[in-house]
Amino acid sequence: MKVVITGGAGFLGQRLARALLARGQLTGPQGRPEPIDTLVVFDAAAPAAPPADDPRLQVVRGDIGDRAALADVLDAETGSVFHLAAVVSAAAEADFDLGMRVNLYGTLAVLEACRALPQPPRLVFTSSIAAFGGELPAVVDDTTPLTPQTSYGTQKAIGELLINDYSRKGFVDGRALRLPTVVVRPGKPNLAASSFASSIIREPLLGQEALCPVSPETRLAIISPRRAVDALLHAHELPPEAWGAYRAVNLPALSVSVEEMLAALRRVAGSRPLGRIRWQPDPHIQRIISSWPAVFTSQRALRLGFQRDARMEEIIEAFIADELP
Amino acid sequence: MKVVITGGAGFLGQRLARALLARGQLTGPQGRPEPIDTLVVFDAAAPAAPPADDPRLQVVRGDIGDRAALADVLDAETGSVFHLAAVVSAAAEADFDLGMRVNLYGTLAVLEACRALPQPPRLVFTSSIAAFGGELPAVVDDTTPLTPQTSYGTQKAIGELLINDYSRKGFVDGRALRLPTVVVRPGKPNLAASSFASSIIREPLLGQEALCPVSPETRLAIISPRRAVDALLHAHELPPEAWGAYRAVNLPALSVSVEEMLAALRRVAGSRPLGRIRWQPDPHIQRIISSWPAVFTSQRALRLGFQRDARMEEIIEAFIADELP
Repeated sequence: MKVVITGGAGFLGQRLARALLARGQLTGPQGRPEPIDTLVVFDAAAPAAPPADDPRLQVVRGDIGDRAALADVLDAETGSVFHLAAVVSAAAEADFDLGMRVNLYGTLAVLEACRALPQPPRLVFTSSIAAFGGELPAVVDDTTPLTPQTSYGTQKAIGELLINDYSRKGFVDGRALRLPTVVVRPGKPNLAASSFASSIIREPLLGQEALCPVSPETRLAIISPRRAVDALLHAHELPPEAWGAYRAVNLPALSVSVEEMLAALRRVAGSRPLGRIRWQPDPHIQRIISSWPAVFTSQRALRLGFQRDARMEEIIEAFIADELP
Repeated sequence: MKVVITGGAGFLGQRLARALLARGQLTGPQGRPEPIDTLVVFDAAAPAAPPADDPRLQVVRGDIGDRAALADVLDAETGSVFHLAAVVSAAAEADFDLGMRVNLYGTLAVLEACRALPQPPRLVFTSSIAAFGGELPAVVDDTTPLTPQTSYGTQKAIGELLINDYSRKGFVDGRALRLPTVVVRPGKPNLAASSFASSIIREPLLGQEALCPVSPETRLAIISPRRAVDALLHAHELPPEAWGAYRAVNLPALSVSVEEMLAALRRVAGSRPLGRIRWQPDPHIQRIISSWPAVFTSQRALRLGFQRDARMEEIIEAFIADELP
C-alpha cells in the first residue's frame, strides 16, 4: 500500500520516513499488516536531503491546501496518512492567514482527500500541547479543556475536533497526538516559539552561542525525536477500538526547566567545551511558552502503551548519537 | 449603524429582529449607544412573514458561505452582527456536507467579513449545548471540556474556538452563547433532534397529536424564546472586559424531563382539551439527545447577569401569550 507523510520534508517527517522504510510494513485499513510499496513525502518545501535512497520513496512538492494536488497524491492505493504539515506557533501568530491556510484549511483538505478514498485510511495527526492554554490547572491531564491562547493552538484544537468527527462518521480512522515540544531538533532555529529549547542544547554542543528568550525557571514539557517518531508509529498501529470515540491523546512528556536542561547538558558534556547561552528575554515568546502546560499527566497515553523519555541526559546523548558528526 | 442578523428568517432571528427594532439602539463598536439605522435580516430562506413593517428593516436572501454576498451586506456601516444561521442538529448529521458548508465554512465567512470591516464589530454567535457530549459529568459546568458527539456540536465547538481566536486577535469582538434547547418554538416540527420538545407542548395546545421519539424520563436543558432573545441582547451589550479572553458561556437553563414538561402542560391547560402524545421511540434521536447535558450550572452566565427561566409553567404561558391566536 501507499503511505503519505504531509510535511514530510520537515525534521520529524524525514525521521518518520526513514523509520517507515526501515520497518517496511504497516497495518492497513483492513487491520492486517501490509507492505509499504510507496512512501510519499508531500511538502511545500523540498527536503534538505532526500531522507533515504530508496525506490519506494517519492518526494512530491505541493501546497497542503491544494485539493487537486492532494487528491493526486492520496489515490486509491493509500492506506495510511501521517499529517504533519503545519505552520509553527510563532509563524502562525505572526501571519494569521498563512496559519489558517495551512493549519486549518490544509487539515480540512487532508480529511476530505481521505474521505474520498475507497477505504477509510488510518490518519495520524500531530496536534500540540499548544491546544491547551489560559488559566490551566497546576497539572494538566487528559480531561483538561482545550482553551488555546494562540492561533496555532486554536487551529490544532480544531483539527482534533475534526479528526474526532470524521472518525465518528467513518470517513477516516484518525488519531491525534498532542506533541510536547520536540527537543533536540537538529539544524537551524525556526519560527516555533519553542525553537530556543533545541537551540540551547544544540548550539552549545556545536561550540556556538545560543539565544535564550525565556527565563531560566521557565518550565517546558518535552519529548525526544526518537520518542516522537515511536509515538507516531504506535498511534498508527493501535487498533481503532483502543481509541474509541475520542481520538486525541496527551503524549507522555518530560517536564524540565530551562536551567535543568542546561545542567543536564553540562553533565553530558563533561569536559567538552560548550558554546555559551546569551539571555535575551523576549516577552512575546515568554508569553506564548508560559501559556502552554509545563506539567501534565498522560494516563491515557501510558495505558495505550506510549513511552516517555526518562531523563534529559538521555535525550541529549541521543541527539549527539543521531545528529552530531 | 447597521445591524445584521444571519439566519434572520428563522424563528429566533425574527423575534430578535422585532426586539432590536423596538429597542432602537445598541452599543456600537466604540462602546457608545448608537441608533439602529438599518437592520438586515440575511437568510437563505425568505421569512414566513416580514418580522415587522419598518423602514429600517431589509430582508436579504443569500448563502452564508457566499463571501461576496456577505461582504455586500457587512459593509462599513455595520457595527453589530448576530450570527444565528445554522443547519440544525439532525440535519447536519444527515447531510454532513451541508452542515460543514453552513455551520463551519459559513461561520468562517462571517468572521472574515467582520475582520474586513474598518472597526471590529460586536459579533454574537449562537453556539449550543450540543458542543458538549460523550462521557459527561453528572453536572456540566463552565469548565467541562467540549467533546461533541455530533457533527453539529463539532461545528459549534469549532465556531467557539474561532470566535475566541478572532476576538483575541482584535478582528472581531465576539461572544458565543451555548443555547440550550429553545422551547416552545412555534410553527412546524423541524430537523433539529430536539424538535419534539416544542411539539409535545405546541401540538397538544393546538388540539393536535404530537410524536415523542424519546422516553418520558429523558431530561433536557431548555430555555424559553423570551429568555433566549434577552440573552442575545445582553451578550451584545456586555462590555468586552466582562468577557475577557474566553468568549463562550453556558446560558442558564431549566432542566426538565419530558414527563415534567407534560405535567406542567396539563396544569397550565386546566380544563382546556389537549391533543394526545404518541410515543414513537427513535433510537437515533434518543442517542443524540442523551449525548447532550441535561443538567448544568452556568455560574459565569449568572455572574454576567444572564437570566434563567424559573418554571416550565411560565414558559408554556408565555408561548400561549406570544404565539397562540
